[in-house]
Amino acid sequence: MKSFVYDVSTKIYFGPDQLGHLKEEVSRFGKKVLLIYGGGSIKRSGLYDSILKELDGMEVYEFGGIESNPRNTTVNKGASLCKEEGIDVILAVGGGSVIDASKVMAAARYYEGDCWDFISRKAVIEKALPVVSILTMAATGSEMDKTAVITNEELHKKASVSDKLIEPAISFLDPTLTFSVSEYQTACGSADIFSHTCETYFSRDEGMLFLDTVMEGLMRTVIQCAPVAMKTPDDYDARANLMWASSWAINGFVRADKPHKWQCHALGHGLSAFYDMTHGLSLAIVTPRWMRKVLNEKTAHRFYEYAVYVWGVSGEEEEMTAALKGIEKTEEFLYKTLGLAGSLGELGIGSEHFEEMADDLVKDGPLSGYVDLSKEDILEIYQNCL
Amino acid sequence: MKSFVYDVSTKIYFGPDQLGHLKEEVSRFGKKVLLIYGGGSIKRSGLYDSILKELDGMEVYEFGGIESNPRNTTVNKGASLCKEEGIDVILAVGGGSVIDASKVMAAARYYEGDCWDFISRKAVIEKALPVVSILTMAATGSEMDKTAVITNEELHKKASVSDKLIEPAISFLDPTLTFSVSEYQTACGSADIFSHTCETYFSRDEGMLFLDTVMEGLMRTVIQCAPVAMKTPDDYDARANLMWASSWAINGFVRADKPHKWQCHALGHGLSAFYDMTHGLSLAIVTPRWMRKVLNEKTAHRFYEYAVYVWGVSGEEEEMTAALKGIEKTEEFLYKTLGLAGSLGELGIGSEHFEEMADDLVKDGPLSGYVDLSKEDILEIYQNCL
Repeated sequence: MKSFVYDVSTKIYFGPDQLGHLKEEVSRFGKKVLLIYGGGSIKRSGLYDSILKELDGMEVYEFGGIESNPRNTTVNKGASLCKEEGIDVILAVGGGSVIDASKVMAAARYYEGDCWDFISRKAVIEKALPVVSILTMAATGSEMDKTAVITNEELHKKASVSDKLIEPAISFLDPTLTFSVSEYQTACGSADIFSHTCETYFSRDEGMLFLDTVMEGLMRTVIQCAPVAMKTPDDYDARANLMWASSWAINGFVRADKPHKWQCHALGHGLSAFYDMTHGLSLAIVTPRWMRKVLNEKTAHRFYEYAVYVWGVSGEEEEMTAALKGIEKTEEFLYKTLGLAGSLGELGIGSEHFEEMADDLVKDGPLSGYVDLSKEDILEIYQNCL
Repeated sequence: MKSFVYDVSTKIYFGPDQLGHLKEEVSRFGKKVLLIYGGGSIKRSGLYDSILKELDGMEVYEFGGIESNPRNTTVNKGASLCKEEGIDVILAVGGGSVIDASKVMAAARYYEGDCWDFISRKAVIEKALPVVSILTMAATGSEMDKTAVITNEELHKKASVSDKLIEPAISFLDPTLTFSVSEYQTACGSADIFSHTCETYFSRDEGMLFLDTVMEGLMRTVIQCAPVAMKTPDDYDARANLMWASSWAINGFVRADKPHKWQCHALGHGLSAFYDMTHGLSLAIVTPRWMRKVLNEKTAHRFYEYAVYVWGVSGEEEEMTAALKGIEKTEEFLYKTLGLAGSLGELGIGSEHFEEMADDLVKDGPLSGYVDLSKEDILEIYQNCL
């Protein structure tokens, strides 16, 4: 077991009746609020009006139109507005993209130059405006972590920065705001939460039992609640569980003492980059193939635990038999219950970029992780995805 | 499911090699540190010397001799010292008592009067010194919550105050510091962690599945790690799991959306008050009797989940059969595996104060909780403890 630092301090208001606390919390930081949002769905849903009503008496500025892959250029514009107007606090209203953009904007407000410098490590975040968020979609966990992903179109790059200074100070999690998330997006988001947890669970240093049990619980929560939320989009309990699980799957708590190499994400990023595939979908395709590849006599005990404690496979089973049943159940869940595409073939994708994708993953040597993967291993996994 | 606020911001350094961060963290708050400790075991263990070495260059003041049930008079003395010397930050080194005393001292430093006024609600905490803690015993969770329990000998009262302002800013959790906790104290502390979780798990409003799974994991962690730590006191993984579990069993995370009535604690406090019994021991005696009393057709489904997900009872069993097996396994764990006294008789305690204890619990009406308990119910539970 490794030593670790746990440092998550976002205050969470959870529930459908918490917006009454918005003004008291936002005004702790000053009078001038910059409201950040995306494509305008918050106007159609009425959330925008509710927020303005709650913030009555404060000076509210606006910056809408954050893209689903937020650009550094957009963030820079928002940061300029913060400087010009002397903004005291940023209120991010949306999903992961809006919150990510807001976090980097909060830091760029105190920086003269392109915010991309934080991502490229040319500059270090030294100060940031406080960020308050109102979450409208459960998946990325940005509402309760210190990471933000930004896209640079000019450089064709998408990368992240992590800093305690940009962790949201306060987040409002209202499950009813996710009632309108579509069945397909709910499936992708759920696959994403499941995968965040799964990647951490299968770790070379197996770490702390207590955190294993929490991860098993996170996965059980997704397994039980995702189908309910897909079928009955306004099932409060299902939406609430997915929302709170999504924050904890990735805020650092369960990852505490584990090495951080996420192989399925690396494999999935290749697919996303070449085929513009939704993140959760690419993970759903890759994960079971990765499992079958890394399952061996040395790792079977871990897959046995996964099968028994996540999927309820009987503990009486022989280790390898139980392990395989756990993987089968994973496939059934992702491809039947969630209804996600079970292969690249279904999406009309062939093997034409596999060599290139694999080369990229092994450019600094084998892809390290739970079981180190050579270029041949990676190609085999991709082939099995067809 | 109820709405809730989650607000826990203590930064944790976890592991045996983290003390090198002590000075950087403590000195963020100023130069003058007041080191608080208990009976001096930290001097015998060498921890005291290590701390002084780490804090070299800072102005370190000392206040030792905190009692195991810290008194308001002791806290007042410490607060005076803080005022006289212009202390910037309190460093609490010990278990729950030392940390509790330090928390109230931190607030009393800004108050003219007896710190008991915070406990009696005569005064409200308006400001407090930052508290940094180094934990030497896993049980109470004081290192990561906002509550402190103080004893007033003059009034014969022991009561608590909760305030975000007294939550430790930073806590150092080094499992090796608990290697010296005796077998019996490890058993009592483990029963305490188990009970904190169990009381929250059995809740009238059954709340959020995700948090249920975390509580099931907390209990599984105690069940698996406590016997190991008792048998092999220097088993790092067992001690680490118990330590991290103890913080999360009671810091508010799992309690989030549940009503907070803890009936076993109320029943156990009666025993502790009349017979000066260790907290964890009184809970161990009461809990299974309470379970048998509140198990009925309406609650059986919850005990079924408890049996299946905490104790691994087969999910194929009939509901009531599984429920009873879960309770039997609880008894076996507490009385055989942990080796705690299975009855009051074993401790030479009779029924002489039962009437008085029960009257006290129902003085404002039935004891509310998972299943409301009348005076007769309470007497029956106590009788079954004999």
